[in-house]
Amino acid sequence: MPKPALLFFDDTHRSIDLRYFCGFEVHDPFIAVRHGRTAYGVLNALEYGRALKESSFDKIIPLEELTEEAKAAGCPAPGPADHIAALARRLKIQAFEVPEDFPSSLLIKLTHLGFELSVIEGAVFAAREIKTDAEAKALREGNRCAAAGFAAAEAILRASTIKGRRLVHEGRTLTSERVREAIQIACIGAGGFPADAIVAGGDQGCDPHCRGYGPLRPHELIVIDIFPRMFKSGYWGDMTRTFLRGTASDAQRDLVAAVAQAQKVALKAITAGVWADEVHQSVHAVFSGLGYETKRTATGAVGFFHGTGHGLGLAIHEPPRIGAVHRKLKKGNVVSVEPGLYYPGLGGCRIEDIVRVTDGKPEMLSKYPYRWELS
Amino acid sequence: MPKPALLFFDDTHRSIDLRYFCGFEVHDPFIAVRHGRTAYGVLNALEYGRALKESSFDKIIPLEELTEEAKAAGCPAPGPADHIAALARRLKIQAFEVPEDFPSSLLIKLTHLGFELSVIEGAVFAAREIKTDAEAKALREGNRCAAAGFAAAEAILRASTIKGRRLVHEGRTLTSERVREAIQIACIGAGGFPADAIVAGGDQGCDPHCRGYGPLRPHELIVIDIFPRMFKSGYWGDMTRTFLRGTASDAQRDLVAAVAQAQKVALKAITAGVWADEVHQSVHAVFSGLGYETKRTATGAVGFFHGTGHGLGLAIHEPPRIGAVHRKLKKGNVVSVEPGLYYPGLGGCRIEDIVRVTDGKPEMLSKYPYRWELS
Repeated sequence: MPKPALLFFDDTHRSIDLRYFCGFEVHDPFIAVRHGRTAYGVLNALEYGRALKESSFDKIIPLEELTEEAKAAGCPAPGPADHIAALARRLKIQAFEVPEDFPSSLLIKLTHLGFELSVIEGAVFAAREIKTDAEAKALREGNRCAAAGFAAAEAILRASTIKGRRLVHEGRTLTSERVREAIQIACIGAGGFPADAIVAGGDQGCDPHCRGYGPLRPHELIVIDIFPRMFKSGYWGDMTRTFLRGTASDAQRDLVAAVAQAQKVALKAITAGVWADEVHQSVHAVFSGLGYETKRTATGAVGFFHGTGHGLGLAIHEPPRIGAVHRKLKKGNVVSVEPGLYYPGLGGCRIEDIVRVTDGKPEMLSKYPYRWELS
Repeated sequence: MPKPALLFFDDTHRSIDLRYFCGFEVHDPFIAVRHGRTAYGVLNALEYGRALKESSFDKIIPLEELTEEAKAAGCPAPGPADHIAALARRLKIQAFEVPEDFPSSLLIKLTHLGFELSVIEGAVFAAREIKTDAEAKALREGNRCAAAGFAAAEAILRASTIKGRRLVHEGRTLTSERVREAIQIACIGAGGFPADAIVAGGDQGCDPHCRGYGPLRPHELIVIDIFPRMFKSGYWGDMTRTFLRGTASDAQRDLVAAVAQAQKVALKAITAGVWADEVHQSVHAVFSGLGYETKRTATGAVGFFHGTGHGLGLAIHEPPRIGAVHRKLKKGNVVSVEPGLYYPGLGGCRIEDIVRVTDGKPEMLSKYPYRWELS
């Protein structure tokens, strides 16, 4: 029996596998098929010309042709399933394999139309997890963009003055929103955009995904996490630094030192063939050895309660994860290394860099100083 | 038999219905259920505290609790299907209804676990198509953000000087990229971001989804389409204007006048109860009456080959569409009205505004002047 044809129906923002497959961006759902060694895209008139120029498809089929064929085959108002059936008739396809997130509605309709569908569990393109040099370069550029954001944020924090419980910059109370805007503008100049950059001070920084809002306070830890997507390549940067404007307490210094040490330990452990969960455990071991407890609370958790890292590529979060999962890191994986500690009252601290796994020491794809106490 | 529980497994960027349902943003896939009148969210420790503060869920269940329950029920490494099964045991759910784009992989696994799943064809929340006053306000703000982008773009085009076939601004050749960057920065200041703003001159403007790149030329039509997503509300703006720096030809003036006339005709036709395809046909009638032919070509199409409009809300493209679909517009629909004409050699022109459908004249939710020949 012939191998089933690979089928997508999605847009390239929702389906990163499709983005990887077709090499360009399409905002509305469309049909893409790999049959034998040939990659087919079905695009309407709105996208057709651009697809010819920008996509990596071998053949591009106008959607309007399939609409006419479906109508000729007796379907008065063809939808995606009918278009796919028309394409299958052309290419003599009987069986499709689809990604895990293929729309349930289409799976059922195509099955009713007599096609055999099988779902690919896990990665559609295993190669996506092993980054080429060109991809590593694109990810390095993403982090250069993030670093431009940190430079802008640090400059504002340094230039602000401390007035009681406020930070004042250019005559106004400094807020998370103002720092985020400065980060966004700096990143645009570097070719990408960090839509949801986190600038979270004090207890806000203890919610790792809180974007941060309102006044930033002196003498409080401020977690800044910048993850820009590059306009041209579509690849991401992802870095975190924790700052403090004013004077840190001993407890804050200990917290930051613990996170910095945990990151060093994790970076040292990362090499081709290491178990991801062992890297993650090494971070936990540093924290518990220093007396930092991790536990659930009524409003969430305290301590270190997220993964040590995640893959980075065309998706901001992709395999492999460095967490409780027992699998080996491979040469060419690109992952974040981002231990953190969070205690309401004391504050949050996270330090994040991006590395490519090699047979020896990991290759750093991100770079920004670790100075944090801006006194 | 009780009504099946509504089930989502997605992130709120991919699933706009889920974003609408839960009222906040989550970047990674998670479980959400509506059972009876109660909305449940299942969030891990990373999101739990934020969900308590920001989401509209009635009850939030820590994912870690379901992991423990699934393990206790004999599943050593629980995945999403096992978590959903654990939740179903708690809430005594036997049947789920899921959106069209529910992941096929989960549909199959849950069916194997003995649940009954039905797919909701079409809108999950019909109310999403009827915008409240608060939503109309958010969309008006989105378009105010877009208008800030147009003001920045127009200012640069006006300030540029014509040197032969180049436009020069601040001593350098003016490009699509530089205008796009100015638009992005202006939009950030207005509270949103237009990631893929189109600035496409000359023949590039004939590919309606080409973002535009390289030098902008004098005396050529430049299509500028700005669709920012607002940071706080998550709602969009979406507007298009077509400019020309220099002196237009008679053919260019006729083209722009035809598109402007078609937009007026469509706006006049839009009211509660009108057939969307009749509005669309009225645009075609203007163009063919003026001698503008629409046809497919080897590289795509020329003339007017896209829809007249689309719904706008938490999604940039959502129902109802104004195109070849025979359905009535309803009071409260918010739609774009964006006729365009595209002829390589002459250039492209599109004019787009956003309106809310009423029983009388549509309510304009976008505002920016229509001057276009910047001589």
